[in-house]
Amino acid sequence: MRPGWFPGSGRLCRVASIIRSPLSAVAVRSMSQSQPRAGRPALASWLSTGNSITQQFMAIGGQADFVSLAGGLPAAELYPVEAMAAAQERALTRWGSAILEYGPIEGLPALRAAVAERVSAASGRRFGPENVLLTTGAMQGLDLVGKLLVDPGELIVSQFPTYLGALDAWRPRAPRYEKLDWSLQAPGQDAALRQAKFVYAVPNYSNPTGVLVSQEERAALLDKVLAAGTWLLEDDPYLPLQFDGPAGPGILAHHAQRQPSGAYDGPVIYLGTLSKSLAPGLRVGWIVAEASLIAALALVKQSTDIASSLLTQALALEMIESDFEAQHVPKIVATYRERRDALCAAASEHLSDWFEWEVPPGGMFVWMRAKTPEIDTDALYAHALQEKVAFVPSSVFDPDGALKSAMRVNFTRSAPEVLTEGVRRLARATRRQLEARPGRAA
Amino acid sequence: MRPGWFPGSGRLCRVASIIRSPLSAVAVRSMSQSQPRAGRPALASWLSTGNSITQQFMAIGGQADFVSLAGGLPAAELYPVEAMAAAQERALTRWGSAILEYGPIEGLPALRAAVAERVSAASGRRFGPENVLLTTGAMQGLDLVGKLLVDPGELIVSQFPTYLGALDAWRPRAPRYEKLDWSLQAPGQDAALRQAKFVYAVPNYSNPTGVLVSQEERAALLDKVLAAGTWLLEDDPYLPLQFDGPAGPGILAHHAQRQPSGAYDGPVIYLGTLSKSLAPGLRVGWIVAEASLIAALALVKQSTDIASSLLTQALALEMIESDFEAQHVPKIVATYRERRDALCAAASEHLSDWFEWEVPPGGMFVWMRAKTPEIDTDALYAHALQEKVAFVPSSVFDPDGALKSAMRVNFTRSAPEVLTEGVRRLARATRRQLEARPGRAA
Repeated sequence: MRPGWFPGSGRLCRVASIIRSPLSAVAVRSMSQSQPRAGRPALASWLSTGNSITQQFMAIGGQADFVSLAGGLPAAELYPVEAMAAAQERALTRWGSAILEYGPIEGLPALRAAVAERVSAASGRRFGPENVLLTTGAMQGLDLVGKLLVDPGELIVSQFPTYLGALDAWRPRAPRYEKLDWSLQAPGQDAALRQAKFVYAVPNYSNPTGVLVSQEERAALLDKVLAAGTWLLEDDPYLPLQFDGPAGPGILAHHAQRQPSGAYDGPVIYLGTLSKSLAPGLRVGWIVAEASLIAALALVKQSTDIASSLLTQALALEMIESDFEAQHVPKIVATYRERRDALCAAASEHLSDWFEWEVPPGGMFVWMRAKTPEIDTDALYAHALQEKVAFVPSSVFDPDGALKSAMRVNFTRSAPEVLTEGVRRLARATRRQLEARPGRAA
Repeated sequence: MRPGWFPGSGRLCRVASIIRSPLSAVAVRSMSQSQPRAGRPALASWLSTGNSITQQFMAIGGQADFVSLAGGLPAAELYPVEAMAAAQERALTRWGSAILEYGPIEGLPALRAAVAERVSAASGRRFGPENVLLTTGAMQGLDLVGKLLVDPGELIVSQFPTYLGALDAWRPRAPRYEKLDWSLQAPGQDAALRQAKFVYAVPNYSNPTGVLVSQEERAALLDKVLAAGTWLLEDDPYLPLQFDGPAGPGILAHHAQRQPSGAYDGPVIYLGTLSKSLAPGLRVGWIVAEASLIAALALVKQSTDIASSLLTQALALEMIESDFEAQHVPKIVATYRERRDALCAAASEHLSDWFEWEVPPGGMFVWMRAKTPEIDTDALYAHALQEKVAFVPSSVFDPDGALKSAMRVNFTRSAPEVLTEGVRRLARATRRQLEARPGRAA
C-alpha cells in the first residue's frame, strides 16, 4: 500500500473552509471533526484518508452570492421537469405495482435491453440485457467494481490526474495505484499492467482535464490490456457532451471490432449514465461487461442495497423510448458550447498572463495550468473563496496530492455573464495570491 | 477471522437449484460459475464466501406454479399504485428541478425532518434532521455502517440466527462474529461486547424467528452496551407489522429515556424503512444516530453512490405528509394477521407431527423447528422444490451454516388458500425427506 497516494484530510482541510449548505443541516466538516465521542470504537481505518471536498462543492453550489466554477453539475434550467412529470405518469400506468417491488437486482429488464441496444449501436456488435447491470448513477458502478475486484493492497493503474470520486469509491478497498501513461512509454508500464486488477480510463473529455484521447492511443491501450490479461474500466459519463464533432469509438467499441460476434467476453467494463443527458437526480447509470462479470456484480449489488428503485428506472425508460433524450441532448450541447466559449474568451482576456489551457472539445471542464511556479492553486483557492469564487485545485485530482500548478474550472452550471464575472474574480484572486506569497519583496 | 462463520457458496449451491427469474435474463448461479474467464485477474477474496440464495428466492417469487413461502416480500396487491401516482405528480409540482439535482448527500431535508419527527414521537425526546441520513432502503444502511466501522478481522456481536442480508452486507469488510445471547448470561459475552465494533440486534419480530424481544431484555442489553462502550445497531424494518398489540419502546427509545434532552450522543444506530408500510420499490430507508456519526456516514455514502434519488424521497414525503402511510398500515396489518393465522392453522393440521413454532406477534415469518433430529431442512429444501414449494432453511441464517433443524416460512406474500396449499406441499415434502433419508430401513 502507498497511503501517500490518497488525498489526506489535513491537506484538504487547509484547502477549503467549512461552508454550510443552504439545503443541508449537517455542517461540512473534516473526518477528524466527524469522529464520534471518545469511549466508543473508532471508525474504520480507511476513513482517516477521507476528504470532504465534494460535499463542500455541492454546498457552495447553493449559495446565491457565490460564483462556483468548482462543481461538476449540469445546468439545472435544462432539467426536463414537465417531460419527467409526464413520463412518471406513463411509467406507473404502464407497469403498475410491478415497479413498486424490489425488482430484479440487475434492474428493469426493458431498460437493460434499451441500454444494450444503445451500446450495440455504438459499437457495431451485439450486446444483450445479460451484459447490462443498472446502477444508482455511474458512481455506484465505481463502488461495485472496486468491491468486486480489489483486495487491500492490490494495484489499480489509473490515468492521472484522475476523477476524485473514483479515488473516493475505492478507498474502502485500500488499493495502491500506479499512473497510466497514455503514451504507454513510461518505464514499468507493462509490468504495472500485468499486476493490475484493472486499468481506469476516461477517454472522452476526462474529468478534470477535458482531454479527448486519440483513437490511436485507445487502440494501443487496448492492445496492452489484452496482452497483460487485465480488466479495463472505461468510465464514460461525458459521452453526450460532444461540442466539436464526434468523439469517435470508445474502447469498448474498439474491442467489439476485434470480436464482432458471439457472446462478449472482452476485458472492457464500461460505465454510462443519464446524469448528463437528462438529470443526475434520476440516479440511473449502468455497467456493461461480459455476462459472467455482470452476474457477479449483481451479487455485489445485492449485498449493497438489494436493488435500485425501479420507479426511476421506468421513468428513464420512458424518456429514452419517447426519443426525448435524443432530442434533448443537442440543446444541452448548444448551451454548454456557448458557455465554454464564454469562459475561454473571458479567460483569454483576464487570465492568460498566468494560465494556459486547451479549449476542451467536450465535457464540463477547462483545465488551466499555471505558467509560473509562483502560482500554487491550493493557496489560490483560499484567496478565491474570499473573492466569492470557487474552482477545484489540481492537488485534489492527484493521488499524491503534490500537483499544485493547475485548476479545474467548470462551465456548465452558470450563464455566460456569470462565468465572465467568475473569471474576473479568479484574476483578482490570482493577483492576491501572487502578492501574498512568502518571500515576496514588500 | 473465523471464515467458517460465513455461509459457504458450496453449501448454498447444494441447498438450492438454479432457477431463472421470468424477469431476469441472468441465470442465478454460484460464484464459482460467475468467475470470469481464465487469464484475467480474479475477483476479490471476500466473494469466495458468496451466496446466491437471496437472488434465488426473488426469482422463485415470479413463478406462477410455485408456492413461495421463502421470500420476505410484501403483499403486492396492497402496493398503493394510485396514491403513488398522485403523490409523484404533487412532488414534481412542489419541488420542480430541485429534485432532479444530485441533492444533498444526506437526503431531502424535509424528509429527514419528517423521519426525525417520527423518531422523536416514538422515543419521547427530540431528534433533528441532523440525526437522520436517508438511504437506498435499510439494506444500504447495513452497507454504510459496515464500511464506517469495520476493518477486516474486527468483531461484530450479532443475534443468532440472524438476517442473511446483514451477513451479506458486511462480507466485503471481512469481520468476525460472536453470537449475541439476549439473556446476556453466555460465557464471554461481556468480553465480546467490549471488543465489538458494534452489536447487531433486531428486537421487533426478527428475521427469521419473528421473536419480539422483551422490554427487560432490551434494557439489559442497553446497560451492557453502555458499560462496554460499544455501538448498538438496532435494525427495525418490521416495526409497522404489529398484529397482537404494541411492540413497545425500541432500544433507541430506551436510551432516550436515559438522556431525555440535549443533543443525542447515545450508542444506538437505528435503521428504519418504508419498504413494509408502503412499497420496497421506493428504496427509501434511514439511519438515525448522533449527528457526528451521521456526518461521517454521509462521507461514506458520498463515496458509495453520491446520493440517493430525491425523486423517490420526495414521493415518500408526500405519502407521509398526506397521512396516507398512517392510514394504510392498519390495512396491511389486518391482511397479514389473517394470513399468519391461516398459515398457522394449516400448519397445526399438517405439520405439527414434525415441527413446533410460536405464533409470531408481528413481522413476516413463522420459524418452525423440527421436533425430530431425522429432519434436515437443507435436505428438505430439495424435496420441497420438487413439490413446487419453497421456504428458507435455517442453515442460511447461521453464520456457521450448521443449524439444519428449522425453517423460515413467510406468510405475507400469499393469500390464505395459497398458504394452506403451500403447507400441504411442505407436509408431502417432509414425508419424502423422512422416507429418503440415508440408513432408513427399506
